[in-house]
Amino acid sequence: MRLIRPTLLFLTFILCSNTRAQEKSGYIPLTQKERQKVELLLSKMTLEEKAHQLASFYPNGNKRLNIPHMQAGECLHGVVAAGTTSFPQAIAMASSWDPELIERIATVIAKEARALGIHHCYTPMLGVLRDARWGRFEEGYAEDAYLVSKIGAAFINGLQGRGKARFSKDHVVATAKHFVADSEPLLGANGAAVEISLRSLHEVHLPPFRAAVEEANVGSVMPAHHTLNGVPCHINTYTLNDVFRKEYGFGGLGVSDNNDLRWVQDRLFATETREETIGKALEAGVHTELAFKQTWADKRMYGPPLVAAVKSGKVPVKLLDEAVRKVLEFKIALRLDEEENPLGKEMTELQKGTKDADVNADVFFSQIDGSLSSPRKGYQEVLNNPAHDALALEAARKSIILLKNANNLLPFRRDQFKKIAVIGPNADTIRLGTYSTQQPKHFITVKQGIEDAVGKNAGVLYAKGTDIQHPNAQQITEAVDIAREADVCVLVLGDDDKTVMENVDRDDIALPGEQDKLMQAIMATGKPVVLVLLHGRPAAIQWAKDHVPAILDGWFLGQETGKVVAEALFGNINPSGKLTVTYPRNVGQVPAFYNTLIPGRPRMMWGTAEGATYPFGYGISYTQFKYSDVKLSKSTMNSRETTFAEVEVTNTGKVAGDEIVQLYIRDDISSLARPIKELKGFKRISLKPGETQKVALPINSRALEFWKDGRWITEPGSFTIMMGPSSEEFKTVKLQLTK
Amino acid sequence: MRLIRPTLLFLTFILCSNTRAQEKSGYIPLTQKERQKVELLLSKMTLEEKAHQLASFYPNGNKRLNIPHMQAGECLHGVVAAGTTSFPQAIAMASSWDPELIERIATVIAKEARALGIHHCYTPMLGVLRDARWGRFEEGYAEDAYLVSKIGAAFINGLQGRGKARFSKDHVVATAKHFVADSEPLLGANGAAVEISLRSLHEVHLPPFRAAVEEANVGSVMPAHHTLNGVPCHINTYTLNDVFRKEYGFGGLGVSDNNDLRWVQDRLFATETREETIGKALEAGVHTELAFKQTWADKRMYGPPLVAAVKSGKVPVKLLDEAVRKVLEFKIALRLDEEENPLGKEMTELQKGTKDADVNADVFFSQIDGSLSSPRKGYQEVLNNPAHDALALEAARKSIILLKNANNLLPFRRDQFKKIAVIGPNADTIRLGTYSTQQPKHFITVKQGIEDAVGKNAGVLYAKGTDIQHPNAQQITEAVDIAREADVCVLVLGDDDKTVMENVDRDDIALPGEQDKLMQAIMATGKPVVLVLLHGRPAAIQWAKDHVPAILDGWFLGQETGKVVAEALFGNINPSGKLTVTYPRNVGQVPAFYNTLIPGRPRMMWGTAEGATYPFGYGISYTQFKYSDVKLSKSTMNSRETTFAEVEVTNTGKVAGDEIVQLYIRDDISSLARPIKELKGFKRISLKPGETQKVALPINSRALEFWKDGRWITEPGSFTIMMGPSSEEFKTVKLQLTK
Repeated sequence: MRLIRPTLLFLTFILCSNTRAQEKSGYIPLTQKERQKVELLLSKMTLEEKAHQLASFYPNGNKRLNIPHMQAGECLHGVVAAGTTSFPQAIAMASSWDPELIERIATVIAKEARALGIHHCYTPMLGVLRDARWGRFEEGYAEDAYLVSKIGAAFINGLQGRGKARFSKDHVVATAKHFVADSEPLLGANGAAVEISLRSLHEVHLPPFRAAVEEANVGSVMPAHHTLNGVPCHINTYTLNDVFRKEYGFGGLGVSDNNDLRWVQDRLFATETREETIGKALEAGVHTELAFKQTWADKRMYGPPLVAAVKSGKVPVKLLDEAVRKVLEFKIALRLDEEENPLGKEMTELQKGTKDADVNADVFFSQIDGSLSSPRKGYQEVLNNPAHDALALEAARKSIILLKNANNLLPFRRDQFKKIAVIGPNADTIRLGTYSTQQPKHFITVKQGIEDAVGKNAGVLYAKGTDIQHPNAQQITEAVDIAREADVCVLVLGDDDKTVMENVDRDDIALPGEQDKLMQAIMATGKPVVLVLLHGRPAAIQWAKDHVPAILDGWFLGQETGKVVAEALFGNINPSGKLTVTYPRNVGQVPAFYNTLIPGRPRMMWGTAEGATYPFGYGISYTQFKYSDVKLSKSTMNSRETTFAEVEVTNTGKVAGDEIVQLYIRDDISSLARPIKELKGFKRISLKPGETQKVALPINSRALEFWKDGRWITEPGSFTIMMGPSSEEFKTVKLQLTK
Repeated sequence: MRLIRPTLLFLTFILCSNTRAQEKSGYIPLTQKERQKVELLLSKMTLEEKAHQLASFYPNGNKRLNIPHMQAGECLHGVVAAGTTSFPQAIAMASSWDPELIERIATVIAKEARALGIHHCYTPMLGVLRDARWGRFEEGYAEDAYLVSKIGAAFINGLQGRGKARFSKDHVVATAKHFVADSEPLLGANGAAVEISLRSLHEVHLPPFRAAVEEANVGSVMPAHHTLNGVPCHINTYTLNDVFRKEYGFGGLGVSDNNDLRWVQDRLFATETREETIGKALEAGVHTELAFKQTWADKRMYGPPLVAAVKSGKVPVKLLDEAVRKVLEFKIALRLDEEENPLGKEMTELQKGTKDADVNADVFFSQIDGSLSSPRKGYQEVLNNPAHDALALEAARKSIILLKNANNLLPFRRDQFKKIAVIGPNADTIRLGTYSTQQPKHFITVKQGIEDAVGKNAGVLYAKGTDIQHPNAQQITEAVDIAREADVCVLVLGDDDKTVMENVDRDDIALPGEQDKLMQAIMATGKPVVLVLLHGRPAAIQWAKDHVPAILDGWFLGQETGKVVAEALFGNINPSGKLTVTYPRNVGQVPAFYNTLIPGRPRMMWGTAEGATYPFGYGISYTQFKYSDVKLSKSTMNSRETTFAEVEVTNTGKVAGDEIVQLYIRDDISSLARPIKELKGFKRISLKPGETQKVALPINSRALEFWKDGRWITEPGSFTIMMGPSSEEFKTVKLQLTK
């Protein structure tokens, strides 16, 4: 071991301060000492060890150099690990339209993740939802770019904390994914080619990623599986470098999706050699590779192929160093060296120098077993924190949506019904949605929730009614029998874990199996029925809308599902969630979204008699809200000014309730086609009976601009400002934009 | 009246030889004398008279100056006028895969059109079919750009004749429409916004228009209703001028679609004033305006608003003159001055000069009644030419498609069945499809065709089975009764004129009404059943494929429908048409097309078990064809060379038949995502039993190129060459392209 002279350390620092990585990143504001550590480590690593740092999800620590491992994990709506808190599914929590709540949820998720030794989460999914056939629908937040932006930024802020890219010991690195336009694949088929206009790319799909950088300083990005206008997202320097890094200012870590580096070449046939693939991926700033255990040893690109590519000179070592440097920066920013791993205290030893091992690549990569980070001591206390359960309960309460309530069937009076039939394949089973823990700390089914709520005041009858995967007529008969016996029926339908999930794309959106038949049979009994939906994609429920008196929609509500459904049924809470996506009548109305561009012929526009079953932004309450006319603080302004759209909302009903006030804008005349309306603001408010609140939402040029020929511009002229309770119910006022 | 001095005439000619129109057109190679006429007329016209020339479909003659009227008309698959020959619907005739036949059909259509006084036809529709929900589906030819190009160019060559833009007295000006990408509107809703990648625009939607210019010198173009990536097609200078005129070399007439100039402003809100709208439309080379009678007087843009715009100086008179000049050129190219109208012989008188009328615009435009061209003397003889009927018969015979023939149920032996039940809402009624004459010279229903075929050898029973618009259960019962009584059932299902047509877009592709129920009821009788489809969009017929033994598909077969269906049933002809579009299982598989781009995940690719019901290029025969291996005349070539893909096809069955040999190509590795396969050649051949023919189809760089960053390029490397009877059945060989 030799002593490293201070001059060498200084030189290393100087030499490296001029690399591409430094120029375009700046994400982690390292101290000089930290930067010295990074450069020293880089200088000590073999090529194999460098490549080893680029493994995502699998061991990337380095025992020889005491570099800590950075553990990735999934945490879409709770950490995917046993015993964690399960919050409402992504699209369900988004239905609360409550970024402040979302940020608190993500804060708790981060805390549980770190307790379990996870430092980096592959969440959130920022795809703007366009196709209900897509199996990953539920992982997204909304069909509207503005709403996805607000929810997504809040979630990232919760995961990462609102620091300056230095992570506390209770926060993790968030990942904006899948970059970009994952949610609009051909036929809704996961990973299918995405061919869209540049306008659609910039105005619909990119804004949530822009917000992730500008409003939440997101730490990492994961490219999508598909080719975007011909170019694989994983080597797409236009979207990753020109737009995301240079235009938006992203400086964080690029992480591949599972297998996708290999598949750029082996499935998408966009490159001819390993060297070309690796070089292009590194050029596009994809620093780490996600490759699962089974593909670890022999199929990675950032393993032996990367080492070979650098050795042969076909991939510059500079590109490799840049990626490793980014990883090391994150390990420091996560304070891994101070806590779980001894990088910090070993620094002195390291500076003494180590033997430069002559590492054989094949042996090296085949012998990796690493040591995954293990849970912190006392992690159970973190997971079992009652405040976490309370937050899961609050989230579910604010997310559940009331779609229909004919003749005020809901809420039930406490002793209104003596016998309650609870029927349906989702009535008494765990339904958490995809990317969920297989072992939540607890789960309350709807049947349990109702039983708990009524105690001994009523009898609860139960029948499954139909098995989603294996329906048989006998089950329906049994369900009809108990429905006849009961005073009221709660029918719990939707998806199971085989009808909606990643790579389970469907060419139909009807309720799967024979659930429609079950519903019609129960309705035929003449008993009052409440339909409760627990599902992962918009369902074709036009028949239910036309026939079933009351509909509660939960998507998937997390561990407190049954408790909250029961609370809603009995009026302990007042449902206040609103749809963040359009519910089309059938799969023939896909893609369904409210903010369509103005058409050249008046065909099939949403809002007509042939329109969607339920529109974007829709959701009702046990109370009523009255909206005043809309006023603008200024009705004429220039593009540097801000006006406020103001409305007074009064709770005219008899119970307290939350309302989600929405602001939409339409550019009346434009040189490029504009949407018929676009969400540009919203606010969730709580109103007691008789109470009035003024809601004032700001409008500035950011709300009026559009993308044209590579720039965001506004055009002077008239805009229609709409405020109201949904995308199809509002009052309007005109705004004039001057030059 | 003054004599015009020769010097003035000469001067006029010189002055005008330098205008924009001259530069970019060159479509009509006028003689010097003709050009003098044009310029002289222009110099004599008032602004009102000039605008008057720009009326499309309605009077544009000029009595004062003896300028003949040019009459527009519709002729999608026959002239839309009483007593004309009705050929198979566009998509049906395309199913023949026989450009030579198509050209002969269009030649006859042109002849009938001119006999009726029509000079300009709004045909063909070159949209590459992408969405079965779209009500105009049947007006197109195929889902494949290459096939649309070949069929479209043939149709245009037939309409126009293969001259140098001088039209014989038996030919008309064709119109390539709707420019561009009309066939991929959001949700399949006619006129909805089209947002597509530039790649898709250039590789999928533009090529048929390129072929229309390069292979058929098309005379006119009609923009589409929609906004294309934000810009209304009617003022889209990128597609109309930069691509269509400058890149492809189009020099003909631009004609608006109905109301669309007005709607650029009043519906699409892309412009603010009449002047701006008119100026932009003229700049984009939309020379004439289609506005129907009811909107003629007060809603046209190229009427008083145009005159006012020029008078106010907001629209340069140069733009107006350019449009008028283009119209006059076409009137001359059509020889209208020599024949129906006396422009030619009045020239001398005209040269003497005329009084410059002080025409008041309002009065002028409100008093127009013009004199529409009337049929030529003896036009009935043209319409009733037996050769025209024979061609309609030949076309139907070559277009009908056999989709299934289990256990060789077809063809029927002459005396095999004593009682034949003919059932279905399309069995005994006129079904011609959209843009058809309301009074064809004759129409043979399927029931009539079968009755004629069997004569007294068998009894024909008939039941409607169900009314598409007003189904009732009793009709099905009656149909089942006659099915039980018969030995075989011919079930004729499909669309009526309310379920598919312009602006009748559907969110379902099931057979409309209760036809599926009827089909299942008939199948339940256990009798042998042949399903005959007469329809206008792909129908969801997976159940039929799984259960009905034989399926004949006609789309709409024109006036000889029933005769040809009967011929196919009894083996007088051997069906040889093939599908030019994919039949998806259901509307959830829309958009359905075979040439999808390579996906990033292996989901829902056509050809898998979850794939389409019937693939592109599919169609079977009463005989069998055996394909040899594929050979290339050169297996390595550079981009300036041509190779031939050769296959030997043998008729191994017992009857003569036609086969459509198809060539597909896949670019194995490409810097931009390429389709999994693409049609690049085809040939229809006739084979006697036992006969073998060699088919050699050329492959040059045009078949290997793709659009990248504004240019068509080829990349050296490997290509898979596929030849076979459909897009899913073929043999392959590899081609290497060198630099």
